[in-house]
Amino acid sequence: MAKSQGILTNMGVDYVVVFRFASTDKEKAEQRFQQLAKALATVGLATEVRNGENHSLLVFVKVASEEHMFGEIYRSRVRDWMHGVRSAAPEKEVKQSLEREPLTEAERLRIIHQLMTNPVVEGGAGITPKKGEWENVESIFALHDHTYNKQWIKKWSTQYLLTSEDLDEIRNRLGEKIAFYFAFTQSYFTFLAVPAALGLGAWLFLGANSPIFAIFAGIWCIVFVEYWKHEEADLAVRWGVRGVSNIETKRKDFKHEKEVTDPVTGETQYVFSPTERLKRQLLQGPFIILSVILLGTLIATAFGIEIFISEVYNGPLKSVLVFLPTVLLTTGLPLLNGILTKIATQISEYENYETDSAYEKSMTRKIFVLNFITSYLPVLLTAFVYVPFGALIVPYLDVFSLTVKPFAEDDKQLESPPTSAWTINPSRLRKQVIYFTVTAQIVNLAMEVIVPYLKRQGFMKFKEMQSKRAQKNGGARPSVSIDDVPEEKEFLYRIRSEAELDVYDVTTDLREMVLQFGYLALFSVVWPLVPVSFLVNNWIELRADAIKICVEMQRPTPWRADTIGPWLESLSFLSWLGSITMAALVYLYSDDGVGPDGSPHAIKGWALLLSIFFSEHLYLFLRWAIAFAISKIDSPGRQKERKDRFAVRQKYFQESLDQTHRLPPISEKADQITRASLEEEARTGSLHASTPEGRFWARQRHWTESAQVGAGLIARAATEAAEGESKKEL
Amino acid sequence: MAKSQGILTNMGVDYVVVFRFASTDKEKAEQRFQQLAKALATVGLATEVRNGENHSLLVFVKVASEEHMFGEIYRSRVRDWMHGVRSAAPEKEVKQSLEREPLTEAERLRIIHQLMTNPVVEGGAGITPKKGEWENVESIFALHDHTYNKQWIKKWSTQYLLTSEDLDEIRNRLGEKIAFYFAFTQSYFTFLAVPAALGLGAWLFLGANSPIFAIFAGIWCIVFVEYWKHEEADLAVRWGVRGVSNIETKRKDFKHEKEVTDPVTGETQYVFSPTERLKRQLLQGPFIILSVILLGTLIATAFGIEIFISEVYNGPLKSVLVFLPTVLLTTGLPLLNGILTKIATQISEYENYETDSAYEKSMTRKIFVLNFITSYLPVLLTAFVYVPFGALIVPYLDVFSLTVKPFAEDDKQLESPPTSAWTINPSRLRKQVIYFTVTAQIVNLAMEVIVPYLKRQGFMKFKEMQSKRAQKNGGARPSVSIDDVPEEKEFLYRIRSEAELDVYDVTTDLREMVLQFGYLALFSVVWPLVPVSFLVNNWIELRADAIKICVEMQRPTPWRADTIGPWLESLSFLSWLGSITMAALVYLYSDDGVGPDGSPHAIKGWALLLSIFFSEHLYLFLRWAIAFAISKIDSPGRQKERKDRFAVRQKYFQESLDQTHRLPPISEKADQITRASLEEEARTGSLHASTPEGRFWARQRHWTESAQVGAGLIARAATEAAEGESKKEL
Repeated sequence: MAKSQGILTNMGVDYVVVFRFASTDKEKAEQRFQQLAKALATVGLATEVRNGENHSLLVFVKVASEEHMFGEIYRSRVRDWMHGVRSAAPEKEVKQSLEREPLTEAERLRIIHQLMTNPVVEGGAGITPKKGEWENVESIFALHDHTYNKQWIKKWSTQYLLTSEDLDEIRNRLGEKIAFYFAFTQSYFTFLAVPAALGLGAWLFLGANSPIFAIFAGIWCIVFVEYWKHEEADLAVRWGVRGVSNIETKRKDFKHEKEVTDPVTGETQYVFSPTERLKRQLLQGPFIILSVILLGTLIATAFGIEIFISEVYNGPLKSVLVFLPTVLLTTGLPLLNGILTKIATQISEYENYETDSAYEKSMTRKIFVLNFITSYLPVLLTAFVYVPFGALIVPYLDVFSLTVKPFAEDDKQLESPPTSAWTINPSRLRKQVIYFTVTAQIVNLAMEVIVPYLKRQGFMKFKEMQSKRAQKNGGARPSVSIDDVPEEKEFLYRIRSEAELDVYDVTTDLREMVLQFGYLALFSVVWPLVPVSFLVNNWIELRADAIKICVEMQRPTPWRADTIGPWLESLSFLSWLGSITMAALVYLYSDDGVGPDGSPHAIKGWALLLSIFFSEHLYLFLRWAIAFAISKIDSPGRQKERKDRFAVRQKYFQESLDQTHRLPPISEKADQITRASLEEEARTGSLHASTPEGRFWARQRHWTESAQVGAGLIARAATEAAEGESKKEL
Repeated sequence: MAKSQGILTNMGVDYVVVFRFASTDKEKAEQRFQQLAKALATVGLATEVRNGENHSLLVFVKVASEEHMFGEIYRSRVRDWMHGVRSAAPEKEVKQSLEREPLTEAERLRIIHQLMTNPVVEGGAGITPKKGEWENVESIFALHDHTYNKQWIKKWSTQYLLTSEDLDEIRNRLGEKIAFYFAFTQSYFTFLAVPAALGLGAWLFLGANSPIFAIFAGIWCIVFVEYWKHEEADLAVRWGVRGVSNIETKRKDFKHEKEVTDPVTGETQYVFSPTERLKRQLLQGPFIILSVILLGTLIATAFGIEIFISEVYNGPLKSVLVFLPTVLLTTGLPLLNGILTKIATQISEYENYETDSAYEKSMTRKIFVLNFITSYLPVLLTAFVYVPFGALIVPYLDVFSLTVKPFAEDDKQLESPPTSAWTINPSRLRKQVIYFTVTAQIVNLAMEVIVPYLKRQGFMKFKEMQSKRAQKNGGARPSVSIDDVPEEKEFLYRIRSEAELDVYDVTTDLREMVLQFGYLALFSVVWPLVPVSFLVNNWIELRADAIKICVEMQRPTPWRADTIGPWLESLSFLSWLGSITMAALVYLYSDDGVGPDGSPHAIKGWALLLSIFFSEHLYLFLRWAIAFAISKIDSPGRQKERKDRFAVRQKYFQESLDQTHRLPPISEKADQITRASLEEEARTGSLHASTPEGRFWARQRHWTESAQVGAGLIARAATEAAEGESKKEL
């Protein structure tokens, strides 16, 4: 099938609404569909309906009434202005102001999306996909611009560094939230060049676990995190979204405790007591403990079994049993993670946040805890349990031999070698770090791009075969495309497959980057080539994400953001924790990377703790100093902000110019007094002269009199002084 | 002399300007005085000149031209509005808005002060006391309101707790900056009740160095500091000064590197490169090292001598030599402090800050370093050097015996007792803490209130005697009051003595409180009655400070502030450091308060460091959690802020109501389409019908058509499904 034409045109469609009625009875579905069509028309959107896959309708939507969109733009800008995102109040004439600063594609799509999803009282159609009366509305998505996408991917894959224009382009197309992810990854990628060079040098000349590399890596982490905070604020200004995160959208699931009518404003407020919420938030404690226990036990067990089998066990089936821990982890971890994520969601919902952003923040924190345990615990176990205490712990691993008993041919096979003969595997830590920072990253990349592609290809093949078989069996189910007008066929084929795609979630990609940063901050000293690996990986990652968005996902709705959000906290936390782990690793392993031989006798507790104490406080001091220094750096964004502020000030001053003109000019006033108002003053003066105050102020009528009196007093004092001196001389 | 009348009236005087011409020749003085009188008249102030003490003139100033003051009020309010201090733009008609919210006394005085000191271009008289052409202007001060002062002191001395109305009253009289000091001290005093009760309990039942008390004291420190941050913001809103610290006044000594004309705004900017300043700020490092070395050496030497003489030395003149360290400290410390403060001032000036607040902040930080060393180093030396390492160090103190040699009668006296015989003095630490937290506080209070009083009394006596002698010797120098009109005599006598008073500096008092808090945060575990002592002390301190301001100082100019400024950082720092010292003290001294016996063998380094590590991280976690919890507390100030914001929003919406009305109402629009515009649409539709897009959108003209098509598709799918099922059944 030649896709050229159907791929190139979007038919002027702004959004597609997928209406699925598979599980709804006919009357209800018809009624609900009518409601949807009417709601869309109410806010000035034109609709076209076509058949979709699997009992669904595709509703194509475009703007018909400019007035409604202008209304929404105006509302959006007033809101921006009130929250300080815009420095000047929006022009009353939206059409004029639009002509001066035209909408970007992202803005246009965001505003149309708001038009559909905002509550009716705020002027929207109030469509809430998958919820309540709108449960048949499966999704709302915009159409990919394939011409642009092709160009985009081609450009990026031939260019070494992304420029700020590239980021602006993403912002204009996909909105600030996604642009912030790319800006962050690009900034991280650029910064990686420094530790990559250092790491290469350290690897060549210093070897592993060099304190010099650890210090530089730590400083680099601080500089990167603090610089990103700075750059983030700068980008937010450049993209005109600074403070956008203060514009809170009410969460639809928020349940209020009581309604309070504010006596002053008369506004009805839906209140949920913050102390009650604080109490509920205390549940996060048990949640973290539960996560640590569940995930920790699983990981530690798998870890123990692995060591037992690979290093101690010599019995039968070793070649098979070696895979046991991998099987345990690959089945157990997703299971536990699923359960814990469900619990996290329930706790976050129970915490009953008023706004979407607060909910998301709380959820992100919980997910970070889970990710932290699964990502870093294995390495932490090797570095701080297996190597220093291995000789003490490994003998206890004999318990696992019980599970192998059934397979044993004779008892001798089960006897573990004497502890004295067993030695820890000194390269284990390095191998593990390499696994997590190279192998796992590559696997991850493949999972992200190649697997979904194969899945989709397979799915399409399957569907094709299915429909062929159906046709053979008597054509009971005609293809959904049977009614398509020929000239729309290709276009509709494309849209139907876009409707089946996943929704892109930028936080997943951000999380991946933050976790990657964690390996660098926590463990890079073990194998200084970690940043080199990440540098290569992230070059590909940036392009792969672009391809993912273009090919494997529905076009994301362009949301605004002025920060990467709660992940910033995670970055700070990881770099802080790095100052502890790096110091501990350097102390434990600085003797040519082998570390203690499995018995903790050689470790001096006070020296270990002292190096941690020293490192952590050095970290905190440097962070303070670097943050201070970076805050002094000027940037185009900040300059722009100052200019805008100046413009507003100037405008206001001009407006109130007549007021200041009405005030008498300063210098003339003084002259006025001199000439005209003396007599007047004398007259009013005599009125007051009956009181001591009146008489006090009446003695010197004008500043010239004051000056004369003063001169007289000065002159007298001078004479007196002269007299006094002459007297003394006598 | 009966003072009643002269004390009660202020003659309507707003400010007194002291013009001193002692060291200026006659012509220049006359010319400069004329300039002063003219400048004051230019900004609408009336003047009266009287003779002052010691070659000075007293220029009495009051507002003559309301217009000028209104102009200044308007400017001040516009500035406030632009910096977000006021939520609404100021009314154009100042008189009207003044009638609605009248000026407080503090506001009035502040604005008149600004009228005199603001640069000429900003509408002020540009008077800069003691600087440049205004070097003869010695001071500008307002007059005490003795009636009110008497009432104030009487009220406070009979009332146990200060209410928020009392603080409001201070704010209305003395301005927000001083009110913040009193609010802070009052808040600190109230909070002290908790650790005082705990401390009493710990002293009775737990003894010294109890970990339980240490934990509670640490938590208390966090809660207090975080709560104060919260309350501070709240007070700032209540007093209408939130964000006032963003209104930067240019520093007069700022030297710009270059002038830059901004291409957009056309404003000439005087720039000093921030990187150059950063370089200069690096000097703070050497400064801190120098301070530690100089002050540290002096204190450690005095400390060593003290121990040597009181505990080791048994030779001649012991009773005299005991005072040697005290003499050393009381002469050396002020000397060194003076030198270091001078260096600090020079560094701060060299750092060349653009604004007064930045300069003050930098200076405060440096002063804090000096104060930190002199206040806490002696105790730190005892706790962490003398007690644990005493037995190792004390033998080396023999070097001091060389200095005593000349006094020795025979060599035997100089022989120190064998080290084995010497034992550390276990009560030394406790005694030292008691000295700093009780004795020193009382001494301080006395120095602050009683000594200046005596000094002033003595000075007045001396002057009286002098003038009597002068009269006896022929009356060469007539009293300055000889020309006074009888009815002004008492008044002028009072003003002349007020002119001689010191200028009140609120940061000195604040610093005292912060340093006091430091003892509590760092060492209170040694002697749990520390907070009890502070509770008593601060009750008196609050009243003593009120008396000090009323009696011993010129009436302070009422400046605004929205925070206690950089001292807040110091509080956080001290409570953080407390988490380290308290843990160390508890570990070292928990065996019935005696601690190690002078030899460090009993101290386990890892245990000490582990307790510090644990305590510090518990502290950081708790601080984060407590700050989070406190941030959720609602308060009247925050409610007020929300209300104000709502009012502004409402006002804006009402203003732009006509704009939203011009937009077609949402529901009607849909009807309009239904009835009238169908044909019109059909016509324009056929115009587009030549393109595929046009034909695509022309298929369903109206939402009702879309709904019909959709219903048809739904119905067909339902039929198909039914057919499919029936087929299967067959």
